[in-house]
Order: sequence, then C-alpha cells, then structure tokens
Amino acid sequence: MKRQDEGLAFLLRYENVAWYEDGKVRILDRRIYPNEIQFVTCNTYGEVAQAITDMVTQSAGPYTTAGMGMALAAYESRDMAEDDMLDFLERAARTISTARPTTTARMTIVTNDCLNTARKAIAAGEKVDEAIFERTIYTLNKRYAAMATVGEYLVDLFPENGKIMTQCYAETIVGTMLRVAKKRGKNLKLFVPETRPYFQGARLTASVALEQGFDTTLITDNMPAFTMVTKKIDVFTSAADAIVLDGHIVNKVGTYQIAIAAKYHGIPYFVTGMPDKGHPTIDTVEIEERDPKLVLEARGVKNTLEGVKGYYPSFDITPPHLVSGVVTDKGIYSAYDLHRYFEDEAKHEFLL
Amino acid sequence: MKRQDEGLAFLLRYENVAWYEDGKVRILDRRIYPNEIQFVTCNTYGEVAQAITDMVTQSAGPYTTAGMGMALAAYESRDMAEDDMLDFLERAARTISTARPTTTARMTIVTNDCLNTARKAIAAGEKVDEAIFERTIYTLNKRYAAMATVGEYLVDLFPENGKIMTQCYAETIVGTMLRVAKKRGKNLKLFVPETRPYFQGARLTASVALEQGFDTTLITDNMPAFTMVTKKIDVFTSAADAIVLDGHIVNKVGTYQIAIAAKYHGIPYFVTGMPDKGHPTIDTVEIEERDPKLVLEARGVKNTLEGVKGYYPSFDITPPHLVSGVVTDKGIYSAYDLHRYFEDEAKHEFLL
Repeated sequence: MKRQDEGLAFLLRYENVAWYEDGKVRILDRRIYPNEIQFVTCNTYGEVAQAITDMVTQSAGPYTTAGMGMALAAYESRDMAEDDMLDFLERAARTISTARPTTTARMTIVTNDCLNTARKAIAAGEKVDEAIFERTIYTLNKRYAAMATVGEYLVDLFPENGKIMTQCYAETIVGTMLRVAKKRGKNLKLFVPETRPYFQGARLTASVALEQGFDTTLITDNMPAFTMVTKKIDVFTSAADAIVLDGHIVNKVGTYQIAIAAKYHGIPYFVTGMPDKGHPTIDTVEIEERDPKLVLEARGVKNTLEGVKGYYPSFDITPPHLVSGVVTDKGIYSAYDLHRYFEDEAKHEFLL
Repeated sequence: MKRQDEGLAFLLRYENVAWYEDGKVRILDRRIYPNEIQFVTCNTYGEVAQAITDMVTQSAGPYTTAGMGMALAAYESRDMAEDDMLDFLERAARTISTARPTTTARMTIVTNDCLNTARKAIAAGEKVDEAIFERTIYTLNKRYAAMATVGEYLVDLFPENGKIMTQCYAETIVGTMLRVAKKRGKNLKLFVPETRPYFQGARLTASVALEQGFDTTLITDNMPAFTMVTKKIDVFTSAADAIVLDGHIVNKVGTYQIAIAAKYHGIPYFVTGMPDKGHPTIDTVEIEERDPKLVLEARGVKNTLEGVKGYYPSFDITPPHLVSGVVTDKGIYSAYDLHRYFEDEAKHEFLL
C-alpha cells in the first residue's frame, strides 16, 4: 500500500485524526463529516494550531493532530542549527498546546512528549520529523489499546439489551464500546442527543453507532430527560475533555444537564477516560467560550434577529456527586478517589 | 383603514394569529417567521385543520385559528339548510379540535363555543360566519386582557434586574410580561433556549424580547443548566399547552429538563396560564409525537446517516413538585391546589 493510501485508510479507521506527510498535515474536516469527506491541508504548524482552534478536528482528534503538527514544525525547521530548531519547536509547542484553552493541560503533555522525542532524535542524528511522526502513531496505538480496555469495563456496566444515552462524540470510546458490545452479544439501543451547535451527536456518534449495526435513535438536546422516562434509559455515558483529580468532569456543554437529569431519574452516569494529572482541582480548568454566532445560526441559517446576543460555553462542569463511576483502563473509580488511579498498576502504557 | 390592512396589522400585533376574510383564512407562517413574513391561505376548514397540524401556527395561535376556521366552515356551508349547516359545522369542529392531539381539550372548548355562537346566529337570522368571526375576536381580546393580568402577577415574582430563563415561545404572555416589566422599570435580562427542532425560542421569543428593548441572550438547548450557574439565573418561566388539574404541566419538550435543573439549582419555576378543566388528571393528556424527520435535520440540512431513527415527542410532562407556582389571572396557585382556581372570583372573563 502506498503511504498516501495508508494515510487515508488510517484517517478513516482511527476516527478521522490527522496525518503528516510530504511537509504537510492533512486533517479530515469533522465540521462537515459525514455529509462530505474533505481534508484541511496545513503547510505550517501555525495552520495546524489554527485548525485545532477552528474545530476542524474535535474530541481526542486534537491530541494526534498536535503530534502531527509538531512533526510538521520539525520539517519546517529541518535546515536550522540544533539550538534554533529546538527554539522553533518550543514555540510550536506553545502555539499548538494553547490552541484551545480547556484542553491546554492535555495538549501540553503531548507537545512535551514531542519535544523529548525531538531532543533524542537530534542526539541520535535521526530525522526529527519522522521521529515525531512515529512517536505520534505509537502514542495513538497505545491510547487505542488502553481505550479498548476502558470499553471492556464500560460494557460490563451495561445491562443486556441496555438502552444507552450518549453525549456529543466520545471519539475512540464510542467505537471500542460498540465493538466490545457486539463481541459479547449485548444488543444495545443507543439514544443520541444531537449536540448543538455542531451536531457532533447527530453527525458522528449516531453515524458510527448505525454503521456498527446498532439500533440508533437521535433526539434533540431538549429531550434527554423526557426520553429517560419514556424510553426507560438504563445508563448515561460520556467521555470527558478533562477528568479533574477532585472528581469534576469537564465535557461538551450539555453533559451537566443530562447528568442532573440522570441523577433525578436514578440512572447511573459513567465517565470514560483517564484522570488528568495536569488538573488537580477544577479551578485549574478554563472553560472555553466560542463564537456566539454559532449559537445564533444552524447549518448556516440565522435563526434570530440581529441584536440578539449568543452565549456559547463550549464545555460545562459536572460535580463528582453526579458521577457514578470513572471508567479507566485500570478499572472503575469513584470520582472521589481518582488519586488512587496513579497508584494502581497499569495494564497498558499510554500517554493520552 | 381598509379591513385587509387592519387584518395584517392585527396579525402582527397579536403575535401572528389567523384572520378570516372573503371566504379565506390567512395564517402567518410561524415556521419561517421572522426570517420571512409569509401567509398560508386556507380555502376550506379542512385546510385550516391541516395548517394547525403542520405547525403553521403554534402556542396559543391554534385557538384563534380554530375560531377563524369555524367562521370559514360557516361560510362554506352558507347556502345549506339550517340542520345541514349545523351538521357541517359539527364535523368541522371535530376536524379542527383534533388537529393536534395534545391540545384537543382546549380546542374543543373553542369549537364548542363557536357552535353555540352559530346556533344563536341562526336563531337570530344573522350571518353565521360573521358572528363566529366577531366572537373569535372578542374571545381573543378577553384572553389578552386576562393575560395582561397574568403578566402583572408574573412580573411581581421577578427581582429588579432579574435574569429570566424562558422556554419555547410562550405567545401572549411573553409580550404582556415584557410590557409590564418595562412599565415598572424592571430591567430584565432574558436567557432564551433556542427550542429545537423548530427554533421557536430563537425565532420568536428572542426576537420579541429584543424588539421590546430587552437584553436578550440565546443559548442552545443543552446549555440551560450550565447557564443557570454561570449567569446566575433568578427565575425560570414557561407557558403550558395544558395545566392539568392534578398539577402536571404539559409544555414544549425541554420544559421538564429545565424544570429539573431549576429545582437542582434552587431556582423557582413559574408556569403561566389557566388550569384546564378538560384535563382532570395527567392520563387524560396524549403526548403528541411528530415527524422524526424534523429531528434528523436542521434548517433543511440532514445531520446524520440514512437509517438513524429520530424520536420527536412534541411536549413533555413536568410533575407538580417541580413547579413553584401557577400564575393565573386570579393570582398565583400551588400546583397542588388548582381546583381552587375555579372557586375564586375572576377579574376577567375569558374563554382560553
């Protein structure tokens, strides 16, 4: 297989992350996927950072994109002296890791890891861009292995024929969770809120669930509570953009509201992912506000009069008492006991 | 003023209800308002019923539209013998009152009142269509007078500089509430969920509030709970499609979810409107399900793959323990004490 084809297959197989090749980074444009399959091509690390800011890729996509952007930065600085190259890469790391404020802690882990890889490659006289590229693929594969384990633990918590409510697009875990459920013959029914203003639930989660052969029902974001009653939802689950060590969950706006409704109805809420060492307490998290224009329109059509303001907090915060369990690669933890995660032995090594 | 101009002014002044004239009923199309001002013209009562089913008019609009449709039915049957005409009108009443299942009880009050008006007009030798038209205008004006009183009581409950969250488009009460607040110098800030799939909050409530000069912020339907925290919302208020005598509130889907979030945050939820004699208990209410296609798309653009199902309950049910007060033209009642409403003396006569 040509590397180019391999790249496309990779992009599609790995839920549409980024791919560094020939001095360019290609990112599948999730803002229009699956209606259209189009790629944003970045020629500089600055363009990669901008693409992350512009939500070309979302969920866990930015972490792989960050690595590919660092490989591109290495390519851009390939003819520099070593010190200049490292300066250049450090600037790139700062630009990329701060592309979205709420995920800066996790992004910094990625870019720091790329900087370490760069230093080793320079010392060993290897091509720096290729070393960072290989490291990014390695990291992604490790994350997939870890998330497969998370999927096993999560599916343990689902009843046979369970009715599962999701939120936004939980990236890797949606695929792994569904594969595990299928393998075990758990005949799940998915209830998917559409996730305004970007419709990630509608476009991504519902599409992936349908393609995996599951009975998938879309609802609008004002319906989760009533659907819990009428459709007898068994479990609410989401991933998280940050799992704070004090037990607060930062995830796509709407998660908090569904978690409140789940608690009210006695439905457990399980969060998937690993606790964030970079966020010891919730006050270390900055909740990103995005362009209010996106709230004032849908699919490019303006919904209201000029002069009406919009408010668009991209994420919200769910307190630990609404969380029934944090499902990690090491098992399920109480949101009040996340420090123990770092004391327990890992089944898989992973970076993010 | 020509009657035609009067009709248009009327349509716009009275939040876009219907107008019977020259053997036709014109209804302002709320599905596209305020992006476009277009009218649906109905030549038969059957077309009027279909327009109500198709959501050309919404909220309290169908009640006036029902009256205008009955006037049109009288026009259609103007050359019939008396008994045949009454048969015709009774068929029209059944068709119109059942155009949307959840509001059948209220619609039946309107169509029964029109039938009474028709019988009196026939007995008095008056033109039946004109009699029903005049009665419909009379009823509408009475309702506006009653709702102005509701607005006074509701605004009593708002703090100075209060931050008010709404739901969907509460028709008459939005206008009266804002006029009262302005008169009293209460500088309200409105926070308006957009109300998918029809965007009534965005298109109607936010537009009306802005036009009345209030600071108006639109949010998507996944944001109410988090906005309660970040913007320190003081009050949640909505109208209702049915205020059941046992204290359950039937209103646009999403109301239940916001009411749960309000309770969780210690924010009062006030419902406006009069209790429904036609609904003694919640099991007398049929929750209408509408075309799932509307959930699968936004502004005409399909959001998900073919094969994903949609679920579209048009209304939801909020239990009495989540309701802080039912604000009527006779004052504020506990949701557990709605029968007393019918024992108290009315300040205004009203039909609906």
